[in-house]
Amino acid sequence: MWSSYFVCVCKIQMYILLCISILTYGGNVEQMSGETQTGNMSAQRLKALRSLMASQPTPLAAYIIPTADAHNSEYIAAADARRAWLSGFTGSAGTALVSSRALMWTDGRYYTQFARQTDAAVWTLMRQSLPDTPTMDKWITANLKKGSVVGVDPRTISREEWTPLQASLAQAKIKLVAVQKNLVDEARSVMGEKLPPRPCNEVVPLPVEYTGKPAGQKIKELREKMIEKKAEALVITALDEVAYTLNLRGSDIEYNPVFFSYLLITQAKVVLFWANGHLPPTVVDHLKGEGAEVEGRAYDEILNYLIEQAKNLSRTGDGDHSIWLSSDASEAVHRAASGEGVIEKPLNLISEVSPVALAKLVKNEVELEGFRKCHIKDGVAVVRFLRWLHEQISAGNNVTEIQAADKLLEFRKEEKDFMGPSFETIPGAGENGAIIHYSPSREGEQRVIKPDDVFLLDSGGQYKDGTTDITRTRYMGAPDKIPGPFKAAFTRVLRGQAALGSALFPKGVKGNVLDSLARRPLWEVGMDYAHGTGHGVGHCLNVHEGPAGVSWRPYPHDPGLAPGQVLSNEPGYYKVGEYGIRHEDLVEIVAITKDSDHPKAANLLDDYDGRGVLGFSTLTMVPHHRICIAVDLLDDFELAYINGYHQRVLRTLEPVLQQRGLVEDLDWLKAECAPITRE
Amino acid sequence: MWSSYFVCVCKIQMYILLCISILTYGGNVEQMSGETQTGNMSAQRLKALRSLMASQPTPLAAYIIPTADAHNSEYIAAADARRAWLSGFTGSAGTALVSSRALMWTDGRYYTQFARQTDAAVWTLMRQSLPDTPTMDKWITANLKKGSVVGVDPRTISREEWTPLQASLAQAKIKLVAVQKNLVDEARSVMGEKLPPRPCNEVVPLPVEYTGKPAGQKIKELREKMIEKKAEALVITALDEVAYTLNLRGSDIEYNPVFFSYLLITQAKVVLFWANGHLPPTVVDHLKGEGAEVEGRAYDEILNYLIEQAKNLSRTGDGDHSIWLSSDASEAVHRAASGEGVIEKPLNLISEVSPVALAKLVKNEVELEGFRKCHIKDGVAVVRFLRWLHEQISAGNNVTEIQAADKLLEFRKEEKDFMGPSFETIPGAGENGAIIHYSPSREGEQRVIKPDDVFLLDSGGQYKDGTTDITRTRYMGAPDKIPGPFKAAFTRVLRGQAALGSALFPKGVKGNVLDSLARRPLWEVGMDYAHGTGHGVGHCLNVHEGPAGVSWRPYPHDPGLAPGQVLSNEPGYYKVGEYGIRHEDLVEIVAITKDSDHPKAANLLDDYDGRGVLGFSTLTMVPHHRICIAVDLLDDFELAYINGYHQRVLRTLEPVLQQRGLVEDLDWLKAECAPITRE
Repeated sequence: MWSSYFVCVCKIQMYILLCISILTYGGNVEQMSGETQTGNMSAQRLKALRSLMASQPTPLAAYIIPTADAHNSEYIAAADARRAWLSGFTGSAGTALVSSRALMWTDGRYYTQFARQTDAAVWTLMRQSLPDTPTMDKWITANLKKGSVVGVDPRTISREEWTPLQASLAQAKIKLVAVQKNLVDEARSVMGEKLPPRPCNEVVPLPVEYTGKPAGQKIKELREKMIEKKAEALVITALDEVAYTLNLRGSDIEYNPVFFSYLLITQAKVVLFWANGHLPPTVVDHLKGEGAEVEGRAYDEILNYLIEQAKNLSRTGDGDHSIWLSSDASEAVHRAASGEGVIEKPLNLISEVSPVALAKLVKNEVELEGFRKCHIKDGVAVVRFLRWLHEQISAGNNVTEIQAADKLLEFRKEEKDFMGPSFETIPGAGENGAIIHYSPSREGEQRVIKPDDVFLLDSGGQYKDGTTDITRTRYMGAPDKIPGPFKAAFTRVLRGQAALGSALFPKGVKGNVLDSLARRPLWEVGMDYAHGTGHGVGHCLNVHEGPAGVSWRPYPHDPGLAPGQVLSNEPGYYKVGEYGIRHEDLVEIVAITKDSDHPKAANLLDDYDGRGVLGFSTLTMVPHHRICIAVDLLDDFELAYINGYHQRVLRTLEPVLQQRGLVEDLDWLKAECAPITRE
Repeated sequence: MWSSYFVCVCKIQMYILLCISILTYGGNVEQMSGETQTGNMSAQRLKALRSLMASQPTPLAAYIIPTADAHNSEYIAAADARRAWLSGFTGSAGTALVSSRALMWTDGRYYTQFARQTDAAVWTLMRQSLPDTPTMDKWITANLKKGSVVGVDPRTISREEWTPLQASLAQAKIKLVAVQKNLVDEARSVMGEKLPPRPCNEVVPLPVEYTGKPAGQKIKELREKMIEKKAEALVITALDEVAYTLNLRGSDIEYNPVFFSYLLITQAKVVLFWANGHLPPTVVDHLKGEGAEVEGRAYDEILNYLIEQAKNLSRTGDGDHSIWLSSDASEAVHRAASGEGVIEKPLNLISEVSPVALAKLVKNEVELEGFRKCHIKDGVAVVRFLRWLHEQISAGNNVTEIQAADKLLEFRKEEKDFMGPSFETIPGAGENGAIIHYSPSREGEQRVIKPDDVFLLDSGGQYKDGTTDITRTRYMGAPDKIPGPFKAAFTRVLRGQAALGSALFPKGVKGNVLDSLARRPLWEVGMDYAHGTGHGVGHCLNVHEGPAGVSWRPYPHDPGLAPGQVLSNEPGYYKVGEYGIRHEDLVEIVAITKDSDHPKAANLLDDYDGRGVLGFSTLTMVPHHRICIAVDLLDDFELAYINGYHQRVLRTLEPVLQQRGLVEDLDWLKAECAPITRE
């Protein structure tokens, strides 16, 4: 799956909007709102909001509605889809600003969707990707009067977004204020609508045979880091970080096995803020079994608890207490943790990349083994699906995009420990493949996959032993019908993927520097793709995981590439109105020596003066569509690399297919993995 | 010339030290201090410093001595070489911290030099390149008591270094204070030494036929930007920015045609702070002729003038005045410009990348034409020198490294508008070539260039029409004696240079993303080079110029690559104790279309959806040593690319050599440029 948080244009001037969109990691929420608003509906909602803005103690000249929830989640629950409710616009990235006007900053992926979903008489699109579009802070300072007050719900904006925004507005004598009640929620209530309930689904343990490290051990290691940092308490706010630390999984946000919660760790105790605070016996037993004593408190208590803690700490000792938070924790949590506005001398804050984010970035051997295993299962499912699909199309049967996605899910469901898709499947037939964030509607006319279609399929699964994310691009017709330019582009994208997949590089360089290796075969002919090349992947967790990645834009918190990290490798090319091409594998970073099983290992002459050599090992186990490969565009290394990969896929899946008696699938796979030759 | 500001290791934790070293741009000051200190001498100087630290109103627990002068110059004058005076260590990068101990943070290039120049009983080396070495702020917070006070001269630290350092120390309840008088200068006086005088050499106009834009026009454009920014005044602090804006050149810092000065621009006036403030008639006439009315004031008046201006502004209007400074201007200038500590409500500061830095980054057509011309002249000089050198060595004559550098200078002096070297020539014979910052001493035993030496020659010239910077690596013996591993490495470095030199990429990407293209041929075999791949180059100005460059580390202020920028392209490889390899060209960024004279132009299928295609055009005009190229390591494109470049060199220099009757040089060049074939 391509990772939208790379799309944001790369301009210093766009820093603030960038922060907002970077940190939400893109994603999409299309599935959460099928509704298409009428202009009138949005106008009424805006009217209610503006009336609340005017009735604030200091009336607000503008109110900002970011996409994020209180945990800076990429995917959000319906309860948090405030911007979508207000505007009708359901894109995954976008920040609304309501003053006497209603403006929406979003990027190039969403211009068409925005126009479709919103009323142009009410909403103005601010094309974030264009250099001439002012950033939100610039727009505010240019359009609002000195002395104006701009409001935002401090739970929906991170400290690292808040600080530069506030500074920029302050230069123009405009005040940014934290409005405690969310005014969009208020407006909704005022209009007599019920707020969607916050999900609070069952929380289940993920046993140590999958996680490789008991919760007690993880907490112990965090406590050691806290001592080093002289931190009194660590506040974990990202949902996947809570799930990771406690080896628990939930289902409060679609596709993401997380649950609404906060976690607070001190040397004396661990407090989980979840639901009403009563932890079910399965959870308590699991945690005890893993050496973790965890106190339950209600989810809603977090801010008050932090404030009380700040008060207590400020009364004791020398007033030198530090609280550790992630810099992308919300402004609200930052304020509460420091006691700002409540105690005279607020506590020190250590606001940095979270130690949990850095810990879970590097997978342990059990997690890695799980990743390898689930990719074999996922490979089986995808191979079975592809054979089925080609058979259907060849037989002249109608298969719609949605039917394809559903069938793929059926195959995945047959695999052990499969929990559900890791994101909404992107089944882009023909021109739809060029829509990077494509998601077909189940309503209305259905797009049938045609024999002369290029079919881009981006999908993934959540398994107890890992998470998958794979894109393959198939031509649905006969080999002699494949259009030449498509074939050339398909091959260039594949060359880019092979270049990155086979690269050797020094330990510790940041993913950012590898990006151009994947783009080079496209750049050479004036082609490119408007997204990053690789994102981190959680282990049975979020399919997009920071803080590392491979993009033309640097990741501010990337600690440097190291063995055990799992990334995607997914260059693409999109011909608007015709087709999309994307080849996506997940890859594991491995240390390489002269003896390693790597196509370049034998040539090694040095190890970067002792720094250590790294390379990738591809986890994904599905062949590329061999008839779409223009062999004459490949050099010898590339040809051998692709054939080598296909042989490995066959060698790996063959015994599984055989054992399960999937003979026809195996025959199909053998044909697909047959060596490509120069003729 | 390799650019040392890329060397700093790439660790978030090292941010503060990084800032200090990034912003000083590396460079070296070796030539400024031949003295080797005895331990006793340094101990006495430290004693005097510590006594001054103790006698401050609040005694200092530590005092920081950065490398930078008050203008954040890469190269500094002897008057500013305070750290070198105190410690004996003359490396271009390094920050001293004096407490009860004396510590020096510097990077891997300087460990040997540090050991040679300083007394281990007195000074402790903090190996900045090692991950386990604490950064300076971490060392301070771990080793000094709460409540301690740390001092620094605010003229020697930029605001963007000061801010995070102060924040980090504050977390540990340690106070960073600005000490107005420089305590190292004080100590020097106390010990009865005279401070080296601040140079104040003649300032000469650079006519518009070289600059392409009159000073009045440059000031007009800056004033337009000031109106956009609502800035009352713009304070230009970097010496090359003052020189660029006024089309004046000086010689106060060796190799850099700049002069100690500040420039202040408002809508009403332009004030040049220089010398005693009396501008000579040649300068006044030049400026008038270029439509610029400039008031002269004494160099030393700057801070008081800014404070008075702040006071005046704070008395008038609505108190809403903004002053624009570069974020790398000193903390002292920032404080003075805002009136901090003097007026009740300090003025707003716009502390961003300087508009002059961005303007001079993109060369105008006259500057570019000058760059092209001076590279032809420089090519002639270097070609003549190389022929001479090979002749000498073949004839069995002794040529020392210094003699080689001197002879090269003789040849350059014969070229029109040559003003002097653009940096100290690096003539690295054999093992000395592996010392990236090598600079042979004129005293003591001289290294003779031997027939079995690899000879790395990095040099450049300042011409009125441009600046050059070229490195060529030569094998001084017979072709059949060339060691195979050297030949292979030479070729890999050349492949890297060709990969970057021939790359196509979208307009606006940052130089950072291109770095790995040049490293790839080395990375593939476990080899690398510990410096960046490209730095910006000033026009008849500093040979290292920000804010763009090509490195694995991002440049925070890089506005994105655009036509008209001039960069170096200089991968390398260093075999310690044996030889150094570096191939350095200067390249101009050009827009590429299908019809361009570029080896990949004809293959273009698109222009990145309208963003525009960029590539490089090589300015440097000297062939690579053909006998060192391992043809079997080149692919067909690379072979054609190198032959094509050599043909262009010959075609360009031939008429010049012919016209000047340099027949033997031309014959030699023809042989050196003969096509390389696969046999």
